[in-house]
Amino acid sequence: MTQTPLLSAAARRFLEKTFPGDASIFSPEEMFVYGVDASRRHALPTAVVRPETVEQVRELLAFAQTEGIPILPRGRGTNTVGDCVPATGGIVVSTARLNRILEIDADDFVAVVEPGLVTGDLQAALAKNRLFYAPDPASVKFSTIGGNAATCAGGMRAVKYGVTRDHILGIEAVLPGGELVNCGGRTHKNVVGLDLTRLFVGSEGTLGLMTKLTLKLLPLPAATATLALAFASVDEALTAAGDVFRAGILPVALEFMAREAMAAVAKISPVPWPAAAGAMLLIRVDGSPEAVAADIRLVETAAQSAAPLWRQAAVSHADEEALWEPRRLLNPASFKVAPDKISDDVTVPRGRLRQAAAGIAATAEELGLKILVFGHIGDGNLHVNIMHDAADSDERARAQTARERILALCLSLRGTLSGEHGVGLAKLPFLDQQLSPVERALMGRVKAAFDPRGIMNPGKAY
Amino acid sequence: MTQTPLLSAAARRFLEKTFPGDASIFSPEEMFVYGVDASRRHALPTAVVRPETVEQVRELLAFAQTEGIPILPRGRGTNTVGDCVPATGGIVVSTARLNRILEIDADDFVAVVEPGLVTGDLQAALAKNRLFYAPDPASVKFSTIGGNAATCAGGMRAVKYGVTRDHILGIEAVLPGGELVNCGGRTHKNVVGLDLTRLFVGSEGTLGLMTKLTLKLLPLPAATATLALAFASVDEALTAAGDVFRAGILPVALEFMAREAMAAVAKISPVPWPAAAGAMLLIRVDGSPEAVAADIRLVETAAQSAAPLWRQAAVSHADEEALWEPRRLLNPASFKVAPDKISDDVTVPRGRLRQAAAGIAATAEELGLKILVFGHIGDGNLHVNIMHDAADSDERARAQTARERILALCLSLRGTLSGEHGVGLAKLPFLDQQLSPVERALMGRVKAAFDPRGIMNPGKAY
Repeated sequence: MTQTPLLSAAARRFLEKTFPGDASIFSPEEMFVYGVDASRRHALPTAVVRPETVEQVRELLAFAQTEGIPILPRGRGTNTVGDCVPATGGIVVSTARLNRILEIDADDFVAVVEPGLVTGDLQAALAKNRLFYAPDPASVKFSTIGGNAATCAGGMRAVKYGVTRDHILGIEAVLPGGELVNCGGRTHKNVVGLDLTRLFVGSEGTLGLMTKLTLKLLPLPAATATLALAFASVDEALTAAGDVFRAGILPVALEFMAREAMAAVAKISPVPWPAAAGAMLLIRVDGSPEAVAADIRLVETAAQSAAPLWRQAAVSHADEEALWEPRRLLNPASFKVAPDKISDDVTVPRGRLRQAAAGIAATAEELGLKILVFGHIGDGNLHVNIMHDAADSDERARAQTARERILALCLSLRGTLSGEHGVGLAKLPFLDQQLSPVERALMGRVKAAFDPRGIMNPGKAY
Repeated sequence: MTQTPLLSAAARRFLEKTFPGDASIFSPEEMFVYGVDASRRHALPTAVVRPETVEQVRELLAFAQTEGIPILPRGRGTNTVGDCVPATGGIVVSTARLNRILEIDADDFVAVVEPGLVTGDLQAALAKNRLFYAPDPASVKFSTIGGNAATCAGGMRAVKYGVTRDHILGIEAVLPGGELVNCGGRTHKNVVGLDLTRLFVGSEGTLGLMTKLTLKLLPLPAATATLALAFASVDEALTAAGDVFRAGILPVALEFMAREAMAAVAKISPVPWPAAAGAMLLIRVDGSPEAVAADIRLVETAAQSAAPLWRQAAVSHADEEALWEPRRLLNPASFKVAPDKISDDVTVPRGRLRQAAAGIAATAEELGLKILVFGHIGDGNLHVNIMHDAADSDERARAQTARERILALCLSLRGTLSGEHGVGLAKLPFLDQQLSPVERALMGRVKAAFDPRGIMNPGKAY
C-alpha cells in the first residue's frame, strides 16, 4: 500500500467537525477502496468524506480553496480512465449519501436528483410512472447520475436519443470557494446566458462539485423490438447497418460484435448464431406497438441486401432479453481470452467504420494479439478490448503498441480518442494528437474561470 | 439617421486593404440596413465587412483585439432581441459571403457548412440525399446556420429532436486576437476535453466568430402526418396535449394557438375550425408510413378525452400543408390586430402551461390589451405577442407593463425569460430576475477566457 499523503492537524479537525462520525474516513485500510476505479489504477486519498448536505459541500470547498487541497469527486468508481483515482492525493468526496430522488414530476416531465443516485434506480422509479430517462450506459445498474453527467456517458440508446448531455436541463453545483451556482433550469428549452449546464457535462469533475441535477424526461415508449443478424464478415454487417439508415430508420440501438468478440462469448454460453458468422448486429426500435412491428419489418428488409447468414426477431420482452444476453456477457467473456485488457472507446465518423475495423484487425494480426471489437456502431463508437497477459512483459508491450496504433488510426480517420469514457488519466498522454495547443490553453482558461487555484480533480481530462 | 461613429484613418486603411472592393462598406446609407434586426432596434455600424475567407476573419480579429474595436457578427438579421444591432458602434461582420455548403457526407451523416448559409437552403440540399438536419426554426427560410447556432435556435421539431445545440458536432471559430480553434469534431459522440462546442452554441456572438460548423444529420423520415384539433378552451387543449404524452407518444411537433391568435388568422384567411373554438392543437408525427398511420390514430384516440369540437387529420403532403397554413399566417395576421407588438418567447415547465396561459389572459384583460398566445407547447414554450399602438403613449406603457408582468409570472412558475430567442439587448434589463450575481460573474469570467478585452458583441446576452 502506498503512503497516506499528509493531512495537517487543522485540516483533520475541520473535516472531523464538518463530517462527523463515519462521514469522514482517515484510515488507509478504509480509504483503500476509494483510491481505485475501473481503470484499475490506484492511489491512496488523503481523506475521504461523504457529505449528506449541500451545506457540507460548500464548507468543504471553501476550506479546500483556502488551503489549496485537491478535491476529487467520486460516484461509484465505474470510470474506466482513472477520473476517480486521487493521483495527486487530496480529499475524495463520495456522493454515496447524496443519492436521493428529490422529485419526479410527470406533468413537467422532469426529475430532480442528487448526483450519487444510481441511474438504474432512477429508471426503475420512472418506469412505474411510464416515464423515461433515455441515456443508458452499460454501467447503468452501478454508475451514478453524477458520474454519467461528469463524463457525458453515452450508451446503447444514443443513436436515437443522444447522450447524457442532451437530457440534462439544469445543474446545481458548488464552486471552489463554496459559492453555489444554478445552471440551466427546469424547462425543456432555455437560452438565457452562456450554457454552463453543458459545460459541466463531460467536465470530468474539473469545474466544481455537482449537488443537484434536473433531468429531461420523455414518455416511456410503449413497445420495443429487436432484430439480431449474423453476417459472413464485418464488411457485410456494416453494409447492412448503412442500409438500415438509408431506409429512413433511426433505430434506438445499433450494436455490433466482430468475430473475436463473438467467439469469446461462445466460450461461456451457448450462442444462437451459426459458427461461420464473422460479425453480428443487434438492432432495436421503439415506439407504439404498431409502429414497432412495422419498423422491425422494414429493418429486416433493408438488411437483406447484405445476405445475412442468420436472423432472429423478438417483440416480447423475454425474447428480446435472450437476444441481448450475448452482448451483456462480453465483459466477463473477455477474461476467458486473456487475463488483462486495455479497453478503449474510440469513435470515428460513421462512414469510416469499415476502415477502422480493418485497421484494428490488421493490428491484431501484426502484433499477434486478440483484440475484441464491439460497440455502438450507430454512433461510430467502437469498444476495443486489447487482450493480453500483463505478467508477460513482451505481450504487455505489444498491447501498448496496439493501443497507440489504434488511437492514431482512429484520429487519422477524423475520429476521436473517446466517444463516451472521457480522457481522465489514461488518455492524457495522447491528447496532443487530437487537440491543438490553442484549444488546450483555452480549456485551461475556462477551467480557471471556475477553479482559479486548480483544486478540482487536478491533472486530469485536458 | 444617427451619426456614424468615428473610424481612425489607419483602421479604415486596414479594412480597405483586408476587405477590398465591396467587401467593406463605410457609407452611412449603405450601412444603414446592417444596423437593424427583427427587434426593430437600430444603431449605425462604424464599418461593415463581408469576409469570404477564414484568413480575412483572422486578420480582422487580430487587428480589432489590438485596437479594442467591437466586432459584431451578423447573419441575416432575423434575431428578435437585438443581437445584431451594433449598439456600441464597431465593425459589423456579415457572414453573407461565408455561405457555402462545404460537404454533405451521406455515409458519415454530417454536413460541413459556413455560418452564412441559410438553414432552409441546407435542408433542401439534404432532402435530395434523403438526409435530415432536424432543427427547424420558424425563420428557416431566412435565417442562417451561424445565427441559429449563436442563439441555439429551437423551432417546431424540438419536442422530438431537441434544439440546435443537439445537432452541432463541431465548430471552427476565430478568437479575438486571431487564433483559430476547432471545437468538437466530426463524430456523433465525442467527450474529449471541455465541451467548447456547446459553449459557442447560444453564446450570442460573445465568444468568437464561427467560421465553420459540422452538423449531425439523421436519415430523413419517410413520412409525416398531422392532426389538427380545436377545443372549447385552453384548458381542454392542454388536457389533450398531456394525454398525448401520457399515451407514450413523442410527437415531432405539438403546436398551440389560443383564441385571440386564432381570431387574428381568421381576419386574413378562411379557417377550418368552428367559431366557438377557444384553442387549437397541431400535432405532427414522423417515421415510416406504417408507423405514422398507427401513431396518428393513437394521438387521435388520446386527445378524445378532452372532447375536441373539431378535428382533421392529414397524411398527404398537400393536406398537411393546408393544416399548417394558419400557423404560418400568424405573424402577418398579428398586424391586423394592432400596428405594433412586443414579442416574447417565455418558457415554463410543461405542467405549468395552464397557469401561464391563465395569467397571460388575466393580464390582457386587466390592462385592456390584445395578447396573442401561441407556440411550441410540447416544450412549454409560449410565443406571446403583446399587440398595441406604440403611437399611443398610454397603450405603449400598458404593453410594457404587460411584458413585465408576464416575464415575472413565467419566472415565478420556474420558467425562463427565453426559450429560443436569447437575451440580446431586449431582455438584459430582466436578467437579474433569473440569474444570480454569482452566475453572471461566472459567465463574465468564462467570456474573458475567450475574449479578454470584451470586443465580441459587447453589452449583450449576459
